[in-house]
Amino acid sequence: MTDLTLTTFDWVPELPRGYVRDLRVRWALEEAGLPYRVASVSFHDRTPEHFAHQPFGQVPWLTDGDATLFESGAILLHLGERSDALLPVDPRMRSDAIVWLFAALNSVEAAVLPWSVIRFSGDTTDSPGRQHIDGFLEARLRHMEAVLEGRDWLAGTFSVADILMADTLRLVDRFDGLAARPACRDYVARVTARPAFAKAHADQLAHFAAAD
Amino acid sequence: MTDLTLTTFDWVPELPRGYVRDLRVRWALEEAGLPYRVASVSFHDRTPEHFAHQPFGQVPWLTDGDATLFESGAILLHLGERSDALLPVDPRMRSDAIVWLFAALNSVEAAVLPWSVIRFSGDTTDSPGRQHIDGFLEARLRHMEAVLEGRDWLAGTFSVADILMADTLRLVDRFDGLAARPACRDYVARVTARPAFAKAHADQLAHFAAAD
Repeated sequence: MTDLTLTTFDWVPELPRGYVRDLRVRWALEEAGLPYRVASVSFHDRTPEHFAHQPFGQVPWLTDGDATLFESGAILLHLGERSDALLPVDPRMRSDAIVWLFAALNSVEAAVLPWSVIRFSGDTTDSPGRQHIDGFLEARLRHMEAVLEGRDWLAGTFSVADILMADTLRLVDRFDGLAARPACRDYVARVTARPAFAKAHADQLAHFAAAD
Repeated sequence: MTDLTLTTFDWVPELPRGYVRDLRVRWALEEAGLPYRVASVSFHDRTPEHFAHQPFGQVPWLTDGDATLFESGAILLHLGERSDALLPVDPRMRSDAIVWLFAALNSVEAAVLPWSVIRFSGDTTDSPGRQHIDGFLEARLRHMEAVLEGRDWLAGTFSVADILMADTLRLVDRFDGLAARPACRDYVARVTARPAFAKAHADQLAHFAAAD
């Protein structure tokens, strides 16, 4: 039967709390009602065992029986195959959900990450490179705004694509980057109003607080 | 039977030629020996029809009968389900290949993109933000170097994960970012030595050259 273990760090600094990517996996598991355990690895001392499960020394990873998977996108796709609460059964909707799962990661998060890296660094230097990075995100948000003006969920119904997209846009919102994007803001509010998000978010905060 | 159409731009400037993402789809189709047609959309005038297929106004997209898919990762996963030349049949290896497909996009390409955006912009300003972006890629390359010192292919045999990872690292190599990473360089050389890459690359160059 089910033997799912999610591994995350034992502790992280204040700044990333509530945004560590184990949240996405917790959230999906809560949506699906799948039982799971949470295990910890050291944040300060990343061991060869850690790199054997996650070659970049990051978290999370998931073990499912004998299988071990890293990358939040791969884990959510894997869980989606176990629960129609995460991926719709209708073939066209399912294909759309998988497309949007990739779009959340590679078209939107890929633009959010450098933008947020610069903000986390506290850098306020104006430079052509920074302008390109800001413009890269702005273009993606402009198109996402048009998409989200026309729909509540990315693939016709809630799916793992919404977990990844909302979690990604939530980080932009944190740095006030959605001020001019009401449909994106409404979407983040709608998706994160789900009880499974609240549970996952509270559990992550409690997990890291317990190590303080 | 098969009715696959790959859509790309009719023309692009010199700089991205050989790197437009339709290359990844051409490459996978050539590896699988699947017949396909190539269609074009205007680079200069992106129509509502274009956005209906690719909401960010980018390319490529693939139609497979009635289905339409965008995102190179989603397209390669879809094609992988049609050909064991692209995704191994063994469940453990198949799971590993899908994990690495996501890692190529979200752990490596997400670090390559901002780094290359700054280089394409011609910016040479030194700033804390830029140092963070350079450091972000360096950390990922250091870990990829360790991974690739130990294996020829990411998932035990050639798969779509190698198409995405090699195509991503190829862009770093273009700006001389792999000088200190011999295993990454050897990997790019090994993967791009495949006849399907040479065919896909030549076909992309010919496609854009025909429009000049």
